[in-house]
Amino acid sequence: MTLRLLHLRTSQRAQLLEITSELEGLVRESGVVEGILVAQSLHTTAGLTINENADPDVVHDLRAKLERLIPKDETFYRHAEGNSDSHLKTSLFGPSLTVIISDGKLVLGRWQGIYFCDWDGPRERQVAVQILVSD
Amino acid sequence: MTLRLLHLRTSQRAQLLEITSELEGLVRESGVVEGILVAQSLHTTAGLTINENADPDVVHDLRAKLERLIPKDETFYRHAEGNSDSHLKTSLFGPSLTVIISDGKLVLGRWQGIYFCDWDGPRERQVAVQILVSD
Amino acid sequence: MTLRLLHLRTSQRAQLLEITSELEGLVRESGVVEGILVAQSLHTTAGLTINENADPDVVHDLRAKLERLIPKDETFYRHAEGNSDSHLKTSLFGPSLTVIISDGKLVLGRWQGIYFCDWDGPRERQVAVQILVSD
Repeated sequence: MTLRLLHLRTSQRAQLLEITSELEGLVRESGVVEGILVAQSLHTTAGLTINENADPDVVHDLRAKLERLIPKDETFYRHAEGNSDSHLKTSLFGPSLTVIISDGKLVLGRWQGIYFCDWDGPRERQVAVQILVSD
Repeated sequence: MTLRLLHLRTSQRAQLLEITSELEGLVRESGVVEGILVAQSLHTTAGLTINENADPDVVHDLRAKLERLIPKDETFYRHAEGNSDSHLKTSLFGPSLTVIISDGKLVLGRWQGIYFCDWDGPRERQVAVQILVSD
Repeated sequence: MTLRLLHLRTSQRAQLLEITSELEGLVRESGVVEGILVAQSLHTTAGLTINENADPDVVHDLRAKLERLIPKDETFYRHAEGNSDSHLKTSLFGPSLTVIISDGKLVLGRWQGIYFCDWDGPRERQVAVQILVSD
């Protein structure tokens, strides 16, 4: 498989943007039946996670709690861009994600969706995707 | 390799259940000598991690500190199920895990064990497992 | 591909040590053009992440904020070694990392570097590395 890039545009500073259907489309195009998909944010202030996509209040609560634990400003921050909180949130949620493919589809539980997590938007962002076959 | 499912049952709300030997059994069955194992929680309130399996006080302390940082209830939570803390802990520890296989075994350091982390038990849970060969 | 081991030595208790060039060297040696690299810390108090490698203030701020959220000592910690904070930080940043390889190189955004994160140094440490080909 060759590398694929997803081009995304976020609209808020902290935004969890669901990309499950885009990734499912790449799996379908690949024709891979059994394997894994690796998705990787190409940014140091945006990562990826899997969480609930049924009730939007879950995503609200994730962001609300994280904002309180890791607010934008701290007196001891040195980084001049003022987005150290975004860098930390990216490492905590993680910059990349591996998802199992089986029977030609991403293996996800009933309530699971895959989210691109922008912690320093709004911006244009890219996610690299590689698909591997399990012989 | 085809997809494997581990069926687990947890007995507490927050529980780190070691699944190293179950995963080692799947590697043995697969016959794979060099490769990787991908394990993925199929739930939005339970994830996976690697941590110490020698002294049970480590797991106690992980849970105790997380409970204080991210308590079950917050006045600003909107999600009606009352488990927003569990959703956040899942994204922080991560929903999936990739472990290297070499010489027919999982590559783990002396003190490392693989844990299923239930943040909203007790429940019946499932972990999907895929094994890939490194040619 | 056979397993590779990186041998590292850290010099501080909490240290983010960049290992991007060491990993790029392993990719070059492997001759793999399209695939993934899996890196895995073999320790329960040290993990891996991707974050900014341009301004060293970012790494300073990550550590400074984490030290305040998760200080070394808490009255409720039971683990006698006194490094429960290091175990928690390891699970939060994650013990392993999967990075896409394309065109014979690690796929990284402009500001991204790969860091070994020692939370309980200074020590001698090991990172296991496996490379898989995407057919």
